[in-house]
Amino acid sequence: MNEPARARTRRIGASVRMGFLCLLCVLSPGMAVAADWLASWQAGPARERIVRFVEDVTDPAGRHYVPPASRIAVFDNDGTLWSEQPVYFQLQFAFDRVHALAPQHPEWRTTEPFRSVLAGDQAGIAAAGEKGLAQIVAATHSGTSSDEFERIVAHWLETARHPRFQRRYDELTFAPMRELLAYLRAHGFRTFIVSGGGNDFMRVFSQRAYGIPPEQVIGSRLRSRYEVRDGRPEVVRLPEIGFIDDGPGKPVGIEEVIGRRPILAVGNSDGDFEMLEYVTGGPGPRLGVIVRHDDAGREYAYDRASPIGHLERALDEAPARGWLVLSMKDDWRTIY
Amino acid sequence: MNEPARARTRRIGASVRMGFLCLLCVLSPGMAVAADWLASWQAGPARERIVRFVEDVTDPAGRHYVPPASRIAVFDNDGTLWSEQPVYFQLQFAFDRVHALAPQHPEWRTTEPFRSVLAGDQAGIAAAGEKGLAQIVAATHSGTSSDEFERIVAHWLETARHPRFQRRYDELTFAPMRELLAYLRAHGFRTFIVSGGGNDFMRVFSQRAYGIPPEQVIGSRLRSRYEVRDGRPEVVRLPEIGFIDDGPGKPVGIEEVIGRRPILAVGNSDGDFEMLEYVTGGPGPRLGVIVRHDDAGREYAYDRASPIGHLERALDEAPARGWLVLSMKDDWRTIY
Repeated sequence: MNEPARARTRRIGASVRMGFLCLLCVLSPGMAVAADWLASWQAGPARERIVRFVEDVTDPAGRHYVPPASRIAVFDNDGTLWSEQPVYFQLQFAFDRVHALAPQHPEWRTTEPFRSVLAGDQAGIAAAGEKGLAQIVAATHSGTSSDEFERIVAHWLETARHPRFQRRYDELTFAPMRELLAYLRAHGFRTFIVSGGGNDFMRVFSQRAYGIPPEQVIGSRLRSRYEVRDGRPEVVRLPEIGFIDDGPGKPVGIEEVIGRRPILAVGNSDGDFEMLEYVTGGPGPRLGVIVRHDDAGREYAYDRASPIGHLERALDEAPARGWLVLSMKDDWRTIY
Repeated sequence: MNEPARARTRRIGASVRMGFLCLLCVLSPGMAVAADWLASWQAGPARERIVRFVEDVTDPAGRHYVPPASRIAVFDNDGTLWSEQPVYFQLQFAFDRVHALAPQHPEWRTTEPFRSVLAGDQAGIAAAGEKGLAQIVAATHSGTSSDEFERIVAHWLETARHPRFQRRYDELTFAPMRELLAYLRAHGFRTFIVSGGGNDFMRVFSQRAYGIPPEQVIGSRLRSRYEVRDGRPEVVRLPEIGFIDDGPGKPVGIEEVIGRRPILAVGNSDGDFEMLEYVTGGPGPRLGVIVRHDDAGREYAYDRASPIGHLERALDEAPARGWLVLSMKDDWRTIY
């Protein structure tokens, strides 16, 4: 088939699809509206379940109605709203910062875990473990005011490229998730990020990438202190972990900042287990969703095997708990 | 003057006032609109300065324009949005809880600071100091899930009455402040509470009393932990202070939750000094406001003399820093 013929076939395919969608319009007006909002989703049972949930909680005459004030949805970020392989993007940022700051820290050339980062020694980085990573994050994220830090992250986003896709990291957000966020907000939901990533890091791009304002981003953070520096009042980050927004920390972060139990949670790893459990464990209609990375061709396929985004317990318990497991391969027409 | 004559005089007075306002409409349309929004304020320089600020930052053609995303206003609660005498209302709640819980704690009859609270021994309570108060708060605010705690506070608000005004505590919010919050929101501001009070305590009434949703309430908090209790996932408060949102803690709380420097701050005591300094210390148009309690007849008159709501440094430095000091007596027509 030559190029014009192929394009014609695609157009015909699209027409058939549109016709089918119009048939659906007649059968189910809600699904047709959702097709506009959720165009990157396959018109299958996963999308249907999400749409049914949103229609249920927004139908004032229905018995599952939830008033707008309680329509709170929480989303993990790494692996849920954007990719997280081959390493968490923020960790890549931290590694790049180690290189950038190395001239001011000659001692790093001989001190772990910095030596391994500078040498590109993956085994050395792995050997440093969580404690080593915390050291790297503390050293590369502290000492600045939020304005300075924002400029540093923004510059990194401008210049860094993902090793496989050769695109800006903030271009690797999932189109189906961006659509879902907009669809929820159009239906009176407030959307929050609740992620193990740093809140100050995510806030730099959350509005632009997801339409989520900084104050709706809950993340891990360093301790910080108020200071007047050279006559300028600033809040400065200290090289000390203040809060880890992961695992059982997620419901705590939700409670501290939002103060209410959300009705919808979306995650992708066992780090989201407690958030899913907490959100779906309240009374009334609730939905827990797991994004499963099973698309090696278009993105990555991992879960049980990966230390990053490890998904095992949440996947095993999803059926019994009624959590919806999304297949990126089967449920998403477009990834980015 | 008899009662009907007095009423007539009031009506005439009102007509003259309305006529004067209409004259102002012609002279300054903004001020006339503000008169609708800020009806409990005297039409004096304080109100004028606030209105001018709001008009400046919302005028897209002006050089002080601030886009809606950055229009963030922060308000202290105790003494700023509602009264705080003769004791912080939340402390009264804690004292009442000590009485309610006493049957389950026979040891409190002989253990300070609980003994003093149960005996109504003011000197004993004062002697217990901040450490004693922290003990009382920890003992009376912990051990419950947020749902249970919300019910307890709601019930207290229903039943407790202020000793002087004999009204519900949540009826002692300041009408001029409620108007200011609504006026700001109508002009694209997001309004936050940033207060030394407990976030879970304030969240029970913040929406109803101020139109501020729970997630826009930043306060002090106990540490908390995620637990599955009898199969029900809950976030439970521990008897341990997690964060004190007062003094230099306020800019830290703002940074952690909002992630941006607000452009307007309103407080009433030295506990708001750093918040005022931080907010007014950024670039661009900024406004810091201090509510001064100088109306013993309608509310209370205190500041330098009071341990509760102590106002000294902020008052002394207000002129040099350009902070607006409101007189409740002169600038507010109505208090509650």
